[in-house]
Amino acid sequence: MSEHLRVAVIGHAFMGAAHIHAWRTAPQFFDLPRRPEVALLVGRDEARVREAGSRLEIPETSTDWLAVVQREDIDVIDICTPGDRHAEIACAALEAGKHVLCEKPLANTVAEAERMVQAARTAEAAGSRTFCGFSYRRTPALALARRFVEEGRLGEIRHVRAQYLQDWLSDADAPLTWRLEKEKAGSGSLGDIGAHSVDAAQWISGQRIEGVSSLLHTFVPTRPISGDRAGLGGTASSSAERGPVTVDDAAAFTARFSGGAVGVFEATRYALGRRNANRLEINGSLGSIAFDFERMNELQHFDGRDDQEAQGFRTIQVTDVVHPYADHWWPVGHGLGYGDLFVHQMADFVASLEAEPLRPDFADALEVQRVLDAVELSAAQDSRYTPVQRGEEHD
Amino acid sequence: MSEHLRVAVIGHAFMGAAHIHAWRTAPQFFDLPRRPEVALLVGRDEARVREAGSRLEIPETSTDWLAVVQREDIDVIDICTPGDRHAEIACAALEAGKHVLCEKPLANTVAEAERMVQAARTAEAAGSRTFCGFSYRRTPALALARRFVEEGRLGEIRHVRAQYLQDWLSDADAPLTWRLEKEKAGSGSLGDIGAHSVDAAQWISGQRIEGVSSLLHTFVPTRPISGDRAGLGGTASSSAERGPVTVDDAAAFTARFSGGAVGVFEATRYALGRRNANRLEINGSLGSIAFDFERMNELQHFDGRDDQEAQGFRTIQVTDVVHPYADHWWPVGHGLGYGDLFVHQMADFVASLEAEPLRPDFADALEVQRVLDAVELSAAQDSRYTPVQRGEEHD
Amino acid sequence: MSEHLRVAVIGHAFMGAAHIHAWRTAPQFFDLPRRPEVALLVGRDEARVREAGSRLEIPETSTDWLAVVQREDIDVIDICTPGDRHAEIACAALEAGKHVLCEKPLANTVAEAERMVQAARTAEAAGSRTFCGFSYRRTPALALARRFVEEGRLGEIRHVRAQYLQDWLSDADAPLTWRLEKEKAGSGSLGDIGAHSVDAAQWISGQRIEGVSSLLHTFVPTRPISGDRAGLGGTASSSAERGPVTVDDAAAFTARFSGGAVGVFEATRYALGRRNANRLEINGSLGSIAFDFERMNELQHFDGRDDQEAQGFRTIQVTDVVHPYADHWWPVGHGLGYGDLFVHQMADFVASLEAEPLRPDFADALEVQRVLDAVELSAAQDSRYTPVQRGEEHD
Amino acid sequence: MSEHLRVAVIGHAFMGAAHIHAWRTAPQFFDLPRRPEVALLVGRDEARVREAGSRLEIPETSTDWLAVVQREDIDVIDICTPGDRHAEIACAALEAGKHVLCEKPLANTVAEAERMVQAARTAEAAGSRTFCGFSYRRTPALALARRFVEEGRLGEIRHVRAQYLQDWLSDADAPLTWRLEKEKAGSGSLGDIGAHSVDAAQWISGQRIEGVSSLLHTFVPTRPISGDRAGLGGTASSSAERGPVTVDDAAAFTARFSGGAVGVFEATRYALGRRNANRLEINGSLGSIAFDFERMNELQHFDGRDDQEAQGFRTIQVTDVVHPYADHWWPVGHGLGYGDLFVHQMADFVASLEAEPLRPDFADALEVQRVLDAVELSAAQDSRYTPVQRGEEHD
Repeated sequence: MSEHLRVAVIGHAFMGAAHIHAWRTAPQFFDLPRRPEVALLVGRDEARVREAGSRLEIPETSTDWLAVVQREDIDVIDICTPGDRHAEIACAALEAGKHVLCEKPLANTVAEAERMVQAARTAEAAGSRTFCGFSYRRTPALALARRFVEEGRLGEIRHVRAQYLQDWLSDADAPLTWRLEKEKAGSGSLGDIGAHSVDAAQWISGQRIEGVSSLLHTFVPTRPISGDRAGLGGTASSSAERGPVTVDDAAAFTARFSGGAVGVFEATRYALGRRNANRLEINGSLGSIAFDFERMNELQHFDGRDDQEAQGFRTIQVTDVVHPYADHWWPVGHGLGYGDLFVHQMADFVASLEAEPLRPDFADALEVQRVLDAVELSAAQDSRYTPVQRGEEHD
Repeated sequence: MSEHLRVAVIGHAFMGAAHIHAWRTAPQFFDLPRRPEVALLVGRDEARVREAGSRLEIPETSTDWLAVVQREDIDVIDICTPGDRHAEIACAALEAGKHVLCEKPLANTVAEAERMVQAARTAEAAGSRTFCGFSYRRTPALALARRFVEEGRLGEIRHVRAQYLQDWLSDADAPLTWRLEKEKAGSGSLGDIGAHSVDAAQWISGQRIEGVSSLLHTFVPTRPISGDRAGLGGTASSSAERGPVTVDDAAAFTARFSGGAVGVFEATRYALGRRNANRLEINGSLGSIAFDFERMNELQHFDGRDDQEAQGFRTIQVTDVVHPYADHWWPVGHGLGYGDLFVHQMADFVASLEAEPLRPDFADALEVQRVLDAVELSAAQDSRYTPVQRGEEHD
Repeated sequence: MSEHLRVAVIGHAFMGAAHIHAWRTAPQFFDLPRRPEVALLVGRDEARVREAGSRLEIPETSTDWLAVVQREDIDVIDICTPGDRHAEIACAALEAGKHVLCEKPLANTVAEAERMVQAARTAEAAGSRTFCGFSYRRTPALALARRFVEEGRLGEIRHVRAQYLQDWLSDADAPLTWRLEKEKAGSGSLGDIGAHSVDAAQWISGQRIEGVSSLLHTFVPTRPISGDRAGLGGTASSSAERGPVTVDDAAAFTARFSGGAVGVFEATRYALGRRNANRLEINGSLGSIAFDFERMNELQHFDGRDDQEAQGFRTIQVTDVVHPYADHWWPVGHGLGYGDLFVHQMADFVASLEAEPLRPDFADALEVQRVLDAVELSAAQDSRYTPVQRGEEHD
Repeated sequence: MSEHLRVAVIGHAFMGAAHIHAWRTAPQFFDLPRRPEVALLVGRDEARVREAGSRLEIPETSTDWLAVVQREDIDVIDICTPGDRHAEIACAALEAGKHVLCEKPLANTVAEAERMVQAARTAEAAGSRTFCGFSYRRTPALALARRFVEEGRLGEIRHVRAQYLQDWLSDADAPLTWRLEKEKAGSGSLGDIGAHSVDAAQWISGQRIEGVSSLLHTFVPTRPISGDRAGLGGTASSSAERGPVTVDDAAAFTARFSGGAVGVFEATRYALGRRNANRLEINGSLGSIAFDFERMNELQHFDGRDDQEAQGFRTIQVTDVVHPYADHWWPVGHGLGYGDLFVHQMADFVASLEAEPLRPDFADALEVQRVLDAVELSAAQDSRYTPVQRGEEHD
């Protein structure tokens, strides 16, 4: 490993910590062309970014993201802020010739996302790489599902069934956090978790969503303004002053795919008992796959070509040496965790710098954004079937 | 048990056999006010109905249903024919003052169903009883789910998620049977299996579906005209002449419920590997339930009031003496089967003759029909949100 | 179906009711050479047997079993009494030339069982048939497991892992019933439920248990003498007088099989939460199977010859037309229940009268008894490895 | 975080890599009194240890473990070699006043383990800490199980059921590795994986194993001497020269616990399809728990005090803020992986340096060794019940 790859991480909450751990761990388990190192941590509050930098052993911290993205000695800008800051930072970084890794969703609006893709086109022509952090693609089980589709194990795809169910808003007195404010978060369950389903469904099926008919709903219109957060949800006194929830609590939509498949999607934070049930099932003419992130090391697979008397969904433990990513880790049956997905992502990203660009890039992420946009539009128009606007072809 | 209750069963295919077994078994396990006996079996083909009558030990057979429904010595008409015959037979039987048990769907069109309800109103005033065979209501696990909702264990209901997934049409060369002809079957997956989901969802949630936005799809537009049937699907030579499939292969719709819940429904016969996955999940503010008929003796239940460290979906084996129906059968842990649901249904029906009418009656079944009608209408109108037409209130 | 097969059932508790239902249902779903009918019900208490006979619609009842087994017009004696009566009744019935179906365990001691086998040999030579009711063999999933072993899908068998876990004695104040008295029940968990595991393990593996090393334990040495029974366990006031439990509460043993497999067995009624977990797992050099009666319609199957990337335990729904028994019932995915096993048993028994004798016969059941005997002997001798005594070869 | 804690890791195979990653990751997610750093990596082969050191970014490497354990600037010796080297290295390190963390099993014989405990006693008196790497104790789900027992949720414990099932030796032509040689590995499945079960069973139940009756078996007595390893098992040409397997392939034993519980244990590498099924079930008078490492983020829990109609095993996702370790990681429902257990272990170890010693220490590990010794003795004596020899009390 010759040269170091110097990364500046912007944001140090939950997602920033996951990224930093991943940049550091990747070269221990993957043989990479360059060794990444987190050289700089950027935050808004000086005291807090210093504390985080010290705890995470990062050599330097800053509160001036613009100066950082322009520094000569930085190779990669890794954006872990809320969505309303993505466009500005990414465009500046691309203009400065950096590689840019941006958390999902790419932006809060299609317009912002289009601006980012525009900037990406120019910068990519000059050697920059862009990448959007739909991290679930790095789940070995989902990567295996994609492989199964490519190998033709599913045949012609007919059904895509995607649910992303969480429950941290079930308590009507859980506090009003930034994720419930349209200004910061762009949308609610749709953009936060439904976006993952849309990306995974299109990627694994190999088909694009062509149109949708949707319903958005907010169950609890006001919530206590403050309160200590614990985990995603936290609790707040019910006597606190309440403010308006300006995003959707739940999203449900049907979809038609480019290859003829029919899709059903649902995203919610009110499915009590479902902690992080990011589920995907695809049925084809020859086989099916089913996945639930709550059992992230398993892929369910039905092979319709098995002897009839011995047919059944197989519970594949996707931890064997022949499985995606698994040969870099532990012996078979010793599962991976959520944090390891980011290790895969960073390893793939670094490896791709000297190979094909890693997907999803900004243009792919814009396509997801366009689907979310159609979902919002359909919901606003009596659920009418709404085609997804498409840009130029990207493939 | 004083007096016998004389039943005439019309139809002797799969469903007729299930009913006959159930009429006979019910009094062995349930203490009933009258002992039912199947006195007459009616079929269209004389040789075949005789053979069936002999095998099933039924004292008398007939090919003249009209004469049968008018006989003095018959108390109950049990209709197990395809849906296109329901209205005619049921109306004649009601006119003759019989109790009528009719398989679902009640009819192939709302107009027919309305006519049946009209006839039912008159006959019920004179003492007749009507009942529609949504047999899944007799599943102990679903009856327990209903009880949990009534006990308030789920709190305010937010999500209803219903899937009915089968796979017997996955093979594009499976033959064209009557279930694929609109004239006979009325509709495809929607009326055949989606109807069960609609009935169960409304019954268990205690809320009505107020409107829907839907998508219907036919994956395989033509199929071989003949072929030996094996099970539901069977196989046919792919060289056979093909005829048009005139019903939907799959139905998907979102829904709004009268109490504020959001619903997502899907019915298909193309979910390869899902044999009879009649699934229902309901999430409330205090708890959730989840069910899959493929594990019909289990109810999943999440109680949000459990200690936080010990929360999790419980797999309840609904076979204990305190559970619905279970005290009539085996010791705990010794599950029931599909055929036993009909035993419950017949036992409940007979018991109800001297008590409150058993639900769903024809009027309830018409309400299901109206939902299916709205689904078809929405699908024909670009998935636009379509309110369910309601008749007079029935409760 | 020409001639009727007249059956007298002795005993009308839980097991008698299951048998009667099964005799009656079998000809409705299976094409049998003779139609069985329960002509006589025998009980000890005149009032109670009359009441049962009336409820179950049996033409005649009696309290004199000896007279019944000698009647000319009876073909089959079906013994559903506690184990201490089996030998006397069966021997008398065999002497009278009847076919004898006897509930398991065959007898309470090896000596009694040997006497029964002696009587069976003589009677069988004269045309009688004997059969012992290890009903779990009629579970479609276990019959499929047996088929898989025969087809060589498992290869060389190495491990047999059998647990039969119930929990109805977990409450130390559950009452002292006849199943806890050595005199009546012979043994406790070992003979009642462990016997099923031994029979299934030997049958499915195709190997005999050659020796065992065991441990028996009684957790609760005294229990309240009376109390209303509810299900198997029931509750009793803790202030009631207590009597001694004279059987084992739990049995655990390791075993060596004739073909080189290693076995681990456990039977208990104290596994709180396990209602009827009759489990069997077999691992071979090419494949594995796993079963749990709490999900009786499923067989888990691992095929080591699957592509490495797609290997995993398959959950087979054993309800397809190609599966044992399933073609006589409902469409795929519509499961069977515990009561249906007895229907299979009676159908198999009747069909076998004009074919090969149905297994397990009395001689097979004696072999199970000998294993249980070795388990008791080993437990009494410091768990020392104890060979199973074998009689003449029977195959 | 003031002072660094300097660690030398001895061994750099699978387990060494896991430890190094964990030492480095622990301070990123846990607030520790001292920041650990891996200062030195020791291996036998100079070229290979250098390569590993470079890849893992360890400042210094060595092939002279004795010199390393005596260096002033090293605080902790972390032993990741095969078991035959443990005693020598650990004793030297303790003599030099180091803290010693040793992989399990503590040693290959009880005599060695006793010598290590002797050395530990002296060194601990002078301030050293010892720890044995039974890493499964750091699984959140098992730590929660321990907490449930301590909280009394299980009541009086009756059954302990532990299986550790792997399958990497199912292929009779898998190569002869060091784990199959008694000299290096001490024992086979018993010491390698059965040891984990013994430690977990005693720790969680809070009871000691008092005696055992056991059976050891070797299914494949010779194996190909060489072959490329892939994962634990790998494949070798079946034509290769074969050498003797000198350890047990499978171990099975029953046990009696100090508090009256009955145990059944099984360890094997021939359970085809079970990749790493480290399973534990405990049944008490009030509740039960069940765990399978293949679903390491879940604990099954049955609470017998739940309403009877709502009783069932709960699937607890042990990822909530109230669960052991989970508050240091991701939001609820985002599971951990195998590698994270070592992070917990190192974090706990460092935290304990300024608090109570972390368990299991060497003395605890010796107790496990004594159980394994009794298992081997019983197997050699016709499975006779064999009491576990106990040293002085340690608690």
